[in-house]
Amino acid sequence: MSEIYHVLRSSQFDRKFLDELYDITNTLRKISQSKKGTDYLRSLMSDRRAMLYFTQPSTRTFLSFLNACQILGIQCSEIRDSSTSSEIKGETQEDALRTFSSYVDMIIMRSPVAGLADRVAELLDDTPRRVPVINGGSGKDEHPTQALLDVYTLRRSFGKTGGDLDGKKIAMVGDIKRGRTVRSLSRLLRHFKDVHIYFVSPESLKIEDDLKKYLIENGMNFTETTNFEEVIPEVDAIYMTRIQDEHDESGESKAIDYSKYYFTCDHLKILKKDALIMHPLPRRKEIDFHVDADPRAKYWRQERNGMWTRVALIAKIFGADKDITEPYGA
Amino acid sequence: MSEIYHVLRSSQFDRKFLDELYDITNTLRKISQSKKGTDYLRSLMSDRRAMLYFTQPSTRTFLSFLNACQILGIQCSEIRDSSTSSEIKGETQEDALRTFSSYVDMIIMRSPVAGLADRVAELLDDTPRRVPVINGGSGKDEHPTQALLDVYTLRRSFGKTGGDLDGKKIAMVGDIKRGRTVRSLSRLLRHFKDVHIYFVSPESLKIEDDLKKYLIENGMNFTETTNFEEVIPEVDAIYMTRIQDEHDESGESKAIDYSKYYFTCDHLKILKKDALIMHPLPRRKEIDFHVDADPRAKYWRQERNGMWTRVALIAKIFGADKDITEPYGA
Amino acid sequence: MSEIYHVLRSSQFDRKFLDELYDITNTLRKISQSKKGTDYLRSLMSDRRAMLYFTQPSTRTFLSFLNACQILGIQCSEIRDSSTSSEIKGETQEDALRTFSSYVDMIIMRSPVAGLADRVAELLDDTPRRVPVINGGSGKDEHPTQALLDVYTLRRSFGKTGGDLDGKKIAMVGDIKRGRTVRSLSRLLRHFKDVHIYFVSPESLKIEDDLKKYLIENGMNFTETTNFEEVIPEVDAIYMTRIQDEHDESGESKAIDYSKYYFTCDHLKILKKDALIMHPLPRRKEIDFHVDADPRAKYWRQERNGMWTRVALIAKIFGADKDITEPYGA
Repeated sequence: MSEIYHVLRSSQFDRKFLDELYDITNTLRKISQSKKGTDYLRSLMSDRRAMLYFTQPSTRTFLSFLNACQILGIQCSEIRDSSTSSEIKGETQEDALRTFSSYVDMIIMRSPVAGLADRVAELLDDTPRRVPVINGGSGKDEHPTQALLDVYTLRRSFGKTGGDLDGKKIAMVGDIKRGRTVRSLSRLLRHFKDVHIYFVSPESLKIEDDLKKYLIENGMNFTETTNFEEVIPEVDAIYMTRIQDEHDESGESKAIDYSKYYFTCDHLKILKKDALIMHPLPRRKEIDFHVDADPRAKYWRQERNGMWTRVALIAKIFGADKDITEPYGA
Repeated sequence: MSEIYHVLRSSQFDRKFLDELYDITNTLRKISQSKKGTDYLRSLMSDRRAMLYFTQPSTRTFLSFLNACQILGIQCSEIRDSSTSSEIKGETQEDALRTFSSYVDMIIMRSPVAGLADRVAELLDDTPRRVPVINGGSGKDEHPTQALLDVYTLRRSFGKTGGDLDGKKIAMVGDIKRGRTVRSLSRLLRHFKDVHIYFVSPESLKIEDDLKKYLIENGMNFTETTNFEEVIPEVDAIYMTRIQDEHDESGESKAIDYSKYYFTCDHLKILKKDALIMHPLPRRKEIDFHVDADPRAKYWRQERNGMWTRVALIAKIFGADKDITEPYGA
Repeated sequence: MSEIYHVLRSSQFDRKFLDELYDITNTLRKISQSKKGTDYLRSLMSDRRAMLYFTQPSTRTFLSFLNACQILGIQCSEIRDSSTSSEIKGETQEDALRTFSSYVDMIIMRSPVAGLADRVAELLDDTPRRVPVINGGSGKDEHPTQALLDVYTLRRSFGKTGGDLDGKKIAMVGDIKRGRTVRSLSRLLRHFKDVHIYFVSPESLKIEDDLKKYLIENGMNFTETTNFEEVIPEVDAIYMTRIQDEHDESGESKAIDYSKYYFTCDHLKILKKDALIMHPLPRRKEIDFHVDADPRAKYWRQERNGMWTRVALIAKIFGADKDITEPYGA
């Protein structure tokens, strides 16, 4: 079995890891269907405590991790706003996090500071009481657990129609330049054969050079285009994203006509009948609300999948996964 | 047994429901008196998770629900301030709540937006993963669980002196116009026989026409008056309320002489010897602090009753009530 | 066995209490080393609920208490910011706390208002439903549980080198005037024989007269000095503190040259080889980060010790301590 301690970036995950993780995820969802099973899961890590350190506001990722911990019986402490922290007394973030680590068995963190999760992991590795660190999104770059849940959603949904991710065509639409979900997911797709990615965006929000280089080096197939309508009938999955103008200091995002990159009810007619529509959420206007009722809309399941893959990930870090996948009489 | 799913307004409750709910409440209070009993209650819903979505600040209602959930072993997530929510990213409240619902088994919500609880309940009813919604207070109008605990406190306190609510005289004092507890409680009292309500308030804060119409249509007896002292010796219960000037944009509340509607120590002398003094709290000056020590003062018990009726309500929603009322060897 | 109910000030603790408390602490740490043991601890107070009322921001004390409660299976409610409280509706803090007490079995509180914990304890003592109050730091004066953990850290660290606190020389360095940890700890040290305290500070931040009087009346040995370097080679423990300029309205603290009261890597060379370096944290520049790796640096353990002594204290208040110290087959 592959082993993992800190979870810092999506490049840590190999194919074997993904296969194992998704097996655990599927198994624990089954177990959770009875009260007996749910109580069993809640007993698995009842001796553990976690710290959720979210100084970058993110209600949904926070809640997804919190509920994942609760499912395993892990008790949680939370920082959801750095202003309540004693950092106002002049302490460094590293000291604050080392203090918090002394109370718990794991730190799940999301910070506007790029690289903070790495620095904290490194710092704790040098102490007598090391605990695992999970990066729940840092700076503009990495959001590894989002990539995990996106790939899980793709595989699970394709799996039901008899296939897998291999050979699939996937459009990523919108703010390709700045969306960190696009960056993490694209990298993770290298573990599947013959995937073709269509990056669909306005000219000014195209894929960054470093990601392009990564894809080429890893022999991945991709196409860049500004024409969304042309791509829709071609692909097996459409991954919509939100324009990231909270990261935009200049305000130039406001000038872009984004409406050509919205998914409308009309698009449902030209979309393949078993294709998937995904979105990391929150959405603004990228997907018309009336699309929600279409069976191809998977974004609400994607949310819930996020919680379950995080349960599996945490169980795996602590070696509780074998209590899930080995025969269980529920 | 009566069944209930969403809890949105006090008009949902009929007499049979109230009788059952208060039976559950009384039984679970007895069970909770031993550690074994408390641990048993905590095992009843240990497979459930709830979201407390309180974007209107209300510490006491929030804590009452939170502790009610804890008593049943339900694990909770909380939003206590809409600014921490990802709504700042431009998401609708409906999308946010649908996302949150995907992690949990129940939503308890309090919002300044009138009707939001109804809209969310309706929205979730149309999804494959429906969860119950409890309205913990919305807008200016409804606060159904407050009415439940008020009626419970009246019945339990009268019950001890050998009677029930039937035939009782109840004064509601203060801001009759805007207090939503007055509105919800008055409506719920229609399920009891020959109750007479005295609405005691300054002229400008009298009962609203819609409520008056409701009472008349339901054949209820009531009197409106501005004279508090005259009413005190007549009644079996006095329900004091706080002036709601946080809902007052014009500031005209400040001009009203409210002091004639304060309950003072002198009033204790003219109050019947087994009458009840209640208040939904928080109070300002409506009741003198020295009244607290009088055995007729029930407002602190009322708080605790609130927690217990909410435990019973949640148990009932999920069908866990029969595990409480059926023989249990604690 | 000594008994305790409210925990309000360090003068409540006698030597017998300290000895018992530290026995419990050591035993429960051993128990917690297996999952079976940890689950056992979590079952001890699973029927209890606590309120953490922290209207003075203090992340680390808050988290220390929260995790202590979690270790014993106590479910917690929290107020971390008075602005979310319904105090904004004009309620007194006493009413708010009495309300909160009605939901829980214990209140742990930290407030900028000196004496509030005492007033709340007294208020609750007069009600039919009394619950214990733990002072987690109030105003400028008392922080009794910090003193408990500091003495525990001293004894445990000295114990490993075959001694105890008796006869030891301890330097307290920095803001001796205003640091409430210095005040609480100094008082508690009277329970040990022949301890000699060195108060090391700039002239303007010397020990207050009331504390000096206390030490003299209790026959304790102490020296005041401004010369840090001279003291370092003499002592068995150095207790560094942070300058408390958040309590400083005039801003005169900024004018003090504090750098002579920083512990640097050079100081390690002149410090005794089994001496201890402590700090209540958070630190600013009082201790160089490179000192952290030295085995004599105990401040991170001190943090964790804080959590464990709080577990022991809470267990003791509720009489759960005998379930910890009596034979247990883990």
